[in-house]
Amino acid sequence: MLVVQKYGGTSVATIERIRAVAERCLETQSQGNDVAVVVSAMAGETNRLLGLAHEIQENGNDREFDVIVSTGEQVSSGLLALAIRAMGGKAQSLLGHQVKILTDSAHARARIRSIDSKALSDCFVAGKIAVIAGFQGIDEHGSITTLGRGGSDTTAVAIAAALKADACEIYTDVSGVFTSDPRIVPTARKIDRISYEEMLELASLGTKVLQIRSVEFGMKYQVPIHVRSSFHREPGTWVVPEEEHMEQVLVSGVTAVRNEAKITIPRVPDVSGVAARLFTPLAAQGIVVDMIIQNASSDGTTDLTFTVPRADRKRAIEILLGEAGDLCSEDRLSYDDAIAKVSVVGMGMRSHAGVARRMFEILAEESINILMISTSEIKISCVIKEKYTELALRALHDGFGLYLPVDKRPAP
Amino acid sequence: MLVVQKYGGTSVATIERIRAVAERCLETQSQGNDVAVVVSAMAGETNRLLGLAHEIQENGNDREFDVIVSTGEQVSSGLLALAIRAMGGKAQSLLGHQVKILTDSAHARARIRSIDSKALSDCFVAGKIAVIAGFQGIDEHGSITTLGRGGSDTTAVAIAAALKADACEIYTDVSGVFTSDPRIVPTARKIDRISYEEMLELASLGTKVLQIRSVEFGMKYQVPIHVRSSFHREPGTWVVPEEEHMEQVLVSGVTAVRNEAKITIPRVPDVSGVAARLFTPLAAQGIVVDMIIQNASSDGTTDLTFTVPRADRKRAIEILLGEAGDLCSEDRLSYDDAIAKVSVVGMGMRSHAGVARRMFEILAEESINILMISTSEIKISCVIKEKYTELALRALHDGFGLYLPVDKRPAP
Repeated sequence: MLVVQKYGGTSVATIERIRAVAERCLETQSQGNDVAVVVSAMAGETNRLLGLAHEIQENGNDREFDVIVSTGEQVSSGLLALAIRAMGGKAQSLLGHQVKILTDSAHARARIRSIDSKALSDCFVAGKIAVIAGFQGIDEHGSITTLGRGGSDTTAVAIAAALKADACEIYTDVSGVFTSDPRIVPTARKIDRISYEEMLELASLGTKVLQIRSVEFGMKYQVPIHVRSSFHREPGTWVVPEEEHMEQVLVSGVTAVRNEAKITIPRVPDVSGVAARLFTPLAAQGIVVDMIIQNASSDGTTDLTFTVPRADRKRAIEILLGEAGDLCSEDRLSYDDAIAKVSVVGMGMRSHAGVARRMFEILAEESINILMISTSEIKISCVIKEKYTELALRALHDGFGLYLPVDKRPAP
Repeated sequence: MLVVQKYGGTSVATIERIRAVAERCLETQSQGNDVAVVVSAMAGETNRLLGLAHEIQENGNDREFDVIVSTGEQVSSGLLALAIRAMGGKAQSLLGHQVKILTDSAHARARIRSIDSKALSDCFVAGKIAVIAGFQGIDEHGSITTLGRGGSDTTAVAIAAALKADACEIYTDVSGVFTSDPRIVPTARKIDRISYEEMLELASLGTKVLQIRSVEFGMKYQVPIHVRSSFHREPGTWVVPEEEHMEQVLVSGVTAVRNEAKITIPRVPDVSGVAARLFTPLAAQGIVVDMIIQNASSDGTTDLTFTVPRADRKRAIEILLGEAGDLCSEDRLSYDDAIAKVSVVGMGMRSHAGVARRMFEILAEESINILMISTSEIKISCVIKEKYTELALRALHDGFGLYLPVDKRPAP
């Protein structure tokens, strides 16, 4: 078997923990596997390095930022290789330019184009564990690039894809993917198996266990991803291609994000082209509009409400007033930062109607008003007042029976 | 003009100092020069990284140690490039694998084989300051190597050689090379010009301003090296090819080292091959024997005294007792750690006799007993009791008139 393992920052936070990781790598190898390990920077190190760079310059989309922050993973890969060898094993660290993880040149958020598996297979032939610095690559000019926060997950899955690995194990400080955030929902259960599609929705909607792009990579190359704890040996959550019985599960998880703001422009003329005039300048400035609703009224105008990332709300309003001042003015336009988006995600929605209705019912039973709704094939999201977030999560989680094992839940 | 500048760890110890360095680089460029800058790790960083690695493994001659410690220079090169750009200049960091500083594979003490100047000249053509991470290279397998403590000096001089630079400026926290250590000899003067040969002897004998190998490189490729302070604008010391008037200077500098120990083996048979039997096993274990004296006696035996690095003394004795137990035994063999080697260095010795005699006179006037003597073409070293070190330095310094400007010193 060929196994790729990825260890996050808390798993390599101290020399003692690095030794524990080294033991686990050696154990995996001794079971007859070729092992490639991807490591993050020691916990806190990336922030320390960013802090130095930010003393000089705010904007981090910069070639030199990547040169600086990528050293965190370089250090942990060297330390882990050293620890494996100190225990009598064989290992070698490999950096982005040594594995030849070729990316585009979008610094701080580069995308992987190709991986040359030669250096890795050379390691395996020599009986070595390959210890790869996560998060980093090189572009066609040989400049160091980084893949964005959580990028080591993507490195691991991309390497697993390039090597056609039998599994990509993502070791983290939680036991797997849960039906909801256990800190808020005490009855949350660990999910045993989940499809890429569901995981992708959950990751997009605030579940921080895996970087979104790593799930996309896994889905594209059908890499079985095993999210599990580095602190114990229990199996975690397998993220895998869709399986037949998954359709039986109405809802896999319930999640919430609180990083959006709602902007409302009342009485916009209800004619074609108006939405484009409002949203084109926002897009041009890189502001991502998430949900949009439009309430037509009888006088030929409409109230337009939409959400943007909370951090962009101020800038979004400035752009609207500047570029479309005829459609909105400062005293008419209103906004609300105190909102949350709660979502239910599940493959079962594709074949079973009634999930949306049940969601609205559960929220209504708790007297939680729904401000906006958006749906996709396998998820329903509702914007609510932020103060109801925890209440809504718990009500939806238990209302859909997620506290029960999958086979004990009420049939759809 | 093409100028290479090198800034040491104290010169880039904080973001504020990095900004000051950035200013100086830009100033040099604005005077019409192409500028390549070599930086060390921020002060303390290399020790922090070594500390992490040493928690896992003592022996540092290891591929992974180089992966870990080389990140210090990577961070400072990124920060300096960022600082130059934040001031409106153009700059780009370059790592060992990007400049293609090819070395042998002797980790922690690699030697430079070649430098590909293409990436650097590309920078100059684009009007950029090239900011090079010192201390690091790559071997033919693409593994990161480092050049040993002080290796950034060697990086700078080697790059100056490869670029045929007009000058290699080494910025440091002292004002230049002095006739002796100013902390011990208050009358020490800054030397304006000194030959590579003299600098090499001074560096070998304890003057820490330049790494020895960087001086060898400078001599081999005739690179004019300017050692100067990063804290003010006064000229420092030029290390240059021998000039005619240098012969006029009897003694350029006086220096001392205290890192050796003396071992004596009495009554060794005075026959050929004995010295080889003693010193071959030491050499095989990597112990460098410095000075050797042998006092023949009339009974066909000789007393053999030699010095080794103090840190190797214990191991050296163990090796001798193990490998040549018939020539020495524990109760006969003696050693002394409390010794120092004081040396006078000067081109003038080649053409003027009497320097040695004068040195012995000066030490005798202070009643300092000479334990061992060794000479080369341009230096004389005496081993004395360690407690006399400061006294001997001051007496020799002033006895040879080094407190006076070169042209005011007593004629040979």
